[in-house]
Amino acid sequence: MTEIIGGVCAPKGFLAGGVRCGIKPSSQKKDLALIYSKSSCAAAAMFTSNKVKAASVTVSKENIADGRLRAVIANSGNANACTGSEGMESAKRMAQSAAHALQINFDEVAVASTGVIGVTLPINAIENGIGSLKDSLRDDEQGNADALEAIMTTDTRKKEIAVEIKIDGKPVRIGAIAKGSGMIHPNMATMLAFVTTDAAITSSALDLCLRRAVRNSFNRLTVDGDTSTNDMIVIMANGEAGNTLLISEENDCKEFYEALEYVCIALTRMMARDGEGATKLVTVTVNGAQCRATAQALAKAVASSSLVKAACFGADANWGRVLCAMGYAGVDFVPEKTDISFKSSAGEVQVCKDGMNCRFSEEEAKKILSQEEIEIEIALFEGDGKAVVWGCDLTYDYVKINGDYRS
Amino acid sequence: MTEIIGGVCAPKGFLAGGVRCGIKPSSQKKDLALIYSKSSCAAAAMFTSNKVKAASVTVSKENIADGRLRAVIANSGNANACTGSEGMESAKRMAQSAAHALQINFDEVAVASTGVIGVTLPINAIENGIGSLKDSLRDDEQGNADALEAIMTTDTRKKEIAVEIKIDGKPVRIGAIAKGSGMIHPNMATMLAFVTTDAAITSSALDLCLRRAVRNSFNRLTVDGDTSTNDMIVIMANGEAGNTLLISEENDCKEFYEALEYVCIALTRMMARDGEGATKLVTVTVNGAQCRATAQALAKAVASSSLVKAACFGADANWGRVLCAMGYAGVDFVPEKTDISFKSSAGEVQVCKDGMNCRFSEEEAKKILSQEEIEIEIALFEGDGKAVVWGCDLTYDYVKINGDYRS
Repeated sequence: MTEIIGGVCAPKGFLAGGVRCGIKPSSQKKDLALIYSKSSCAAAAMFTSNKVKAASVTVSKENIADGRLRAVIANSGNANACTGSEGMESAKRMAQSAAHALQINFDEVAVASTGVIGVTLPINAIENGIGSLKDSLRDDEQGNADALEAIMTTDTRKKEIAVEIKIDGKPVRIGAIAKGSGMIHPNMATMLAFVTTDAAITSSALDLCLRRAVRNSFNRLTVDGDTSTNDMIVIMANGEAGNTLLISEENDCKEFYEALEYVCIALTRMMARDGEGATKLVTVTVNGAQCRATAQALAKAVASSSLVKAACFGADANWGRVLCAMGYAGVDFVPEKTDISFKSSAGEVQVCKDGMNCRFSEEEAKKILSQEEIEIEIALFEGDGKAVVWGCDLTYDYVKINGDYRS
Repeated sequence: MTEIIGGVCAPKGFLAGGVRCGIKPSSQKKDLALIYSKSSCAAAAMFTSNKVKAASVTVSKENIADGRLRAVIANSGNANACTGSEGMESAKRMAQSAAHALQINFDEVAVASTGVIGVTLPINAIENGIGSLKDSLRDDEQGNADALEAIMTTDTRKKEIAVEIKIDGKPVRIGAIAKGSGMIHPNMATMLAFVTTDAAITSSALDLCLRRAVRNSFNRLTVDGDTSTNDMIVIMANGEAGNTLLISEENDCKEFYEALEYVCIALTRMMARDGEGATKLVTVTVNGAQCRATAQALAKAVASSSLVKAACFGADANWGRVLCAMGYAGVDFVPEKTDISFKSSAGEVQVCKDGMNCRFSEEEAKKILSQEEIEIEIALFEGDGKAVVWGCDLTYDYVKINGDYRS
């Protein structure tokens, strides 16, 4: 597998674009994105588990039901959530206007929205912008960059990736863009992520690959414990790579799956690193738990703890907070058999052995925890359950971003 | 019921005191507290549900097993948690030294600790201080004040209360002190709270009253989602009020229970108001849920949401975050039938009706949310399930307090 330059336009046959249609009149940034495949696609998607769902989630769920899509239209600046029947009507009109402009069927379009909850979507602005949005479609880097800009909200970094693998000797590409910074605590899928591939693969195999990849990536990400109303990941596969059709996740999809997981984990890490106000990517690894579910629950409790996150911000080797968070995770482990280490590019230091303090150099620990990417490694010696969870630190800026009026 | 001045020394026959024995050499504040009853007491206690338990929790659990206590010794500045067999030995020596000084049995003493996790308890300092600690015992306001100072950590406000009721025409008093500011997300009991009463009541009735009162107070409090390793509430009843012995929670304890619940809720609100870095007490009320458990899960999700808490700090009427938090609470409700209002001493404003935006004055909402005590009221119209949960806002100072080196 090779990482290549580009995003959703890297695979053959995909175009993307983005324009400013004026959803947030005060903002000068692009706010409406389109991703389009020249040919029909097998498709799969996952959506938020929040009981309060945006209208776009409901509409997209219906349109993906047959496992086929050809386009995604997405806006930022307005979540179109908690907007009642008017919001539902707007989400449908948004899909319809894209279908009309692209001359494809309504049910070949997925709709996504992100932004403030509970405000009426200015659907007229979107409909008025659809012509220039279609004109902005390109099959190159610029098309991808425009679409990406148009879905970003409080994001400060671009989240895009593309990889190439070989299947039957044929080059197959997967490309993706994503947004996500706050209100992030995935429980099914999370945030907005759009993935394209020119692989030839059935809808059902694609669906299984996506679910497994999301379980091992986005569902192991937490920024603030808040699962959004609008989370969505969509993958479209147009088959233009010309490989033999992939039909079984367990047999012929191995290479494709690994590449997809790689893409999803890369986006997940980008999202954690760009968590609202975050200065650090925090990776929590639990090894030796009784089973994988236990490992994941423990790692997630640690990565979600406000006290651990604040200690990471302060570069404070306060391992007691790590063990404390594990203690309320609601799963079994033996505190007296727990080891904890902190790791980064500046080195590694064990701070807790058998549930107790190690003699370690505070100075060295502080240096390790002062890096931009830090790891908390926990070893339990009870079994072979392992999990990795990604998160970030809790900072003044998180409070600033979310305390400010109506972000 | 009358609220009276004082804390644990208000009921007849109780003494309290506090000294500085030097647990944190750099601190000038008192760090060792003692509460003592001149006569034998029925007693009850609840402890943290965290799997990682401080040594003091284990020792106190054993000593309370027979439903009798006469004293509580407590230190701040060191949690004596994750300290292994040496820590267990120290907790026992702490209880033993109090028992020896007071000439009572070892198993009549409860031990409590609060402070940093994973550091060896300086038990010699405690043993050396026990003489002056005993000498500090007084049955007046000063004794209570000294004990209270000695258990405080990052607390900025004193948490004490006393009430008087009449049972059989006899005055009966309940008094309490508590500490708690961070690492607060009760799941059983939480924080440290010590309650005294001169009521005559059996251990079993006292235990039932305590469990019910804690369920309706401390277990509905959240500051940061972190359940501590050291949480403990202890109540001692010495019977010196001379009322007819209370034996059944359901029949004769009604007045006593109500007074105890009043005391516990008052302490809970004081703790929320004094949450680490908090500028506001946030009360979340859910009415009309299918059942009480559903109401409580919804209210807790709202009060725990970092985004809701940050919005409260910023006085931002961002009700979408409230509905979003309800959506991931994991219980059933109908978003389209949900009403939300914000309330405070500055007025009341409905911001969401039937799950959608109300036309409301942003200016008025901002004024309401700028007060020190604010209420989020949620109505569901599905049943008669009701719950109140107390929390606080998320501020720069929370990050400051917990990002600083080893708080």
